[in-house]
Amino acid sequence: MGAPDPGRLPDFADVEDAAQRLAGVAVRTPLLSFPELDRRTGGRLLVKPETLQRTGSFKFRGAYTKLSRLDPETRRRGVVAYSSGNHAQGVAAAAQLLDVPATIVMPSDAPRMKIDNTRGYGAEVRLYDRASEDRIAVADAIAARTGAALVRPYDDPDVISGQGTCGLEIAAQAADLGAELDAALFCCGGGGLTSGSALALQARSPDTAVYTVEPEGFDDTLRSLSSGARVGNEPGVQSFCDALLAERPGELTFALNSRLGVRGLAVSDAEVRRAMAFAYSWMKLVVEPGGAVCLAAALAGKLELQGRTVALVLSGGNVDAATFAAVIGEGAAA
Amino acid sequence: MGAPDPGRLPDFADVEDAAQRLAGVAVRTPLLSFPELDRRTGGRLLVKPETLQRTGSFKFRGAYTKLSRLDPETRRRGVVAYSSGNHAQGVAAAAQLLDVPATIVMPSDAPRMKIDNTRGYGAEVRLYDRASEDRIAVADAIAARTGAALVRPYDDPDVISGQGTCGLEIAAQAADLGAELDAALFCCGGGGLTSGSALALQARSPDTAVYTVEPEGFDDTLRSLSSGARVGNEPGVQSFCDALLAERPGELTFALNSRLGVRGLAVSDAEVRRAMAFAYSWMKLVVEPGGAVCLAAALAGKLELQGRTVALVLSGGNVDAATFAAVIGEGAAA
Repeated sequence: MGAPDPGRLPDFADVEDAAQRLAGVAVRTPLLSFPELDRRTGGRLLVKPETLQRTGSFKFRGAYTKLSRLDPETRRRGVVAYSSGNHAQGVAAAAQLLDVPATIVMPSDAPRMKIDNTRGYGAEVRLYDRASEDRIAVADAIAARTGAALVRPYDDPDVISGQGTCGLEIAAQAADLGAELDAALFCCGGGGLTSGSALALQARSPDTAVYTVEPEGFDDTLRSLSSGARVGNEPGVQSFCDALLAERPGELTFALNSRLGVRGLAVSDAEVRRAMAFAYSWMKLVVEPGGAVCLAAALAGKLELQGRTVALVLSGGNVDAATFAAVIGEGAAA
Repeated sequence: MGAPDPGRLPDFADVEDAAQRLAGVAVRTPLLSFPELDRRTGGRLLVKPETLQRTGSFKFRGAYTKLSRLDPETRRRGVVAYSSGNHAQGVAAAAQLLDVPATIVMPSDAPRMKIDNTRGYGAEVRLYDRASEDRIAVADAIAARTGAALVRPYDDPDVISGQGTCGLEIAAQAADLGAELDAALFCCGGGGLTSGSALALQARSPDTAVYTVEPEGFDDTLRSLSSGARVGNEPGVQSFCDALLAERPGELTFALNSRLGVRGLAVSDAEVRRAMAFAYSWMKLVVEPGGAVCLAAALAGKLELQGRTVALVLSGGNVDAATFAAVIGEGAAA
């Protein structure tokens, strides 16, 4: 496949183009207030539940944007993607809508719901073993055999600009509410959602500080932004946040996030569990571990919220029932 | 307390006044689309999640409207209400915001979350035993002793007009989406939400057919509307839908629902459980049993949806974790 061309960074016009492609296809998720959240944090928090997005996560935005920009001949040959589950569902659902054959390479230990739904959207799923197989090699082999185009999970200009429509909507919806955003928080694996959204916010809400939120142990973007160079995570590290286990920031996403002055935060698994339980009890929203990191950062006081207006994304809600039951049973948010 | 004056039916102007009182206080819940729901039903379903409302149910709308219309002297003496939990939380939260003392009479077997939250909003909770005590007598005794005003759960013009703001928002939001509503479905206990919303829809979307949805065994409104006279439920009947266990339609609510041509539907506990599991899996929303009856009616094909545009309310999301875990563990919506 080769590396993406780092010179080809998407710009705000690409985000606007993506928004046009997604109009009437993606769900324009609301920007919501929760009195109990404001009471606890002392701020005005505006919550963007991408859990309500088609496929249960924001990933549909980037996947559909990418596929809609492929030429007809490439679409005919199909697409291949590797993903632990949310990008998988996003690509599968976009491919189904656009009548493009899709093969998704997924780890055999991905949440059951994510595997089932990816198949449910009509994609062929190729499971691989995390310990013994390299997912990129598996995807490359499929691409070489079938001529399918690889849809990277984040390090792709089309995917980044598609995810950026989330930030574009946040800016517009906050303006509709008369809210001036001091900051906006984005869940971060490889950095696609943040970098695309930061592009949109720079254009439409330039005084808003943009933060990534990552799980502890997978805070590669935080450390990379701090040090000024891309660094990876320690091998063998674990996290409850299955959706955010990227090894290192993308080239394109890191270039954008650096240039746009994005800053990083990190949260523990325990903070994530408490945030999921809070979302259950006080927001009535089903949020998966990786989708709850921004809420966890807000509730755990990782940045100053008192008197400030801050947007945060709940990036996904694809969590198996047994996992969710265990978390809400802990009653940690009572 | 005496019965409400049946001659004093609220009108559309009362709903509009309530909307002004609630502006900036109640959450303007969104009207959402879910592709999987449309795919399964063949219709265009627009979902109003009152689960996202302050206190986790629509009941806040009516309670706040009522309290805001009390004169200062009455407010000083306080309010009393009886409720299995959602009206309880609505009254407690409204009382807290308006600095009114509140005592809530609740059954000792109400969901724990509802009792805890009612206390959390600062109300005094008086538990009673369903088998041996009459909640209205308990509330009347408190009112007689303290001079507190009774806030009825549904048979009150102010409460009805407050709940009607839900229907008013549905009409406005559907119009914003360019959708012409063929029908709208409302969860029904005593009929406050439906009758108020039917008032609003008659004024703003007169071609929309309005339906109540009740649990089987508590389908008193369905049978009353069919027969033309108020009838009650069989003694000793049970339902999973703790929020919808009214004994018979209210006088005011029945008068309005009759006059406005409302029709009734009913769903089984099993259909409700499947709807809650569907909402978990495909909508990422936490919905309590009574809040899921309209979704249950849609998924179970209780009315024709093919090619039609239909709004439905998810009226509440206050469900204990153990109950919710059991329902989603059944995996009934896979």
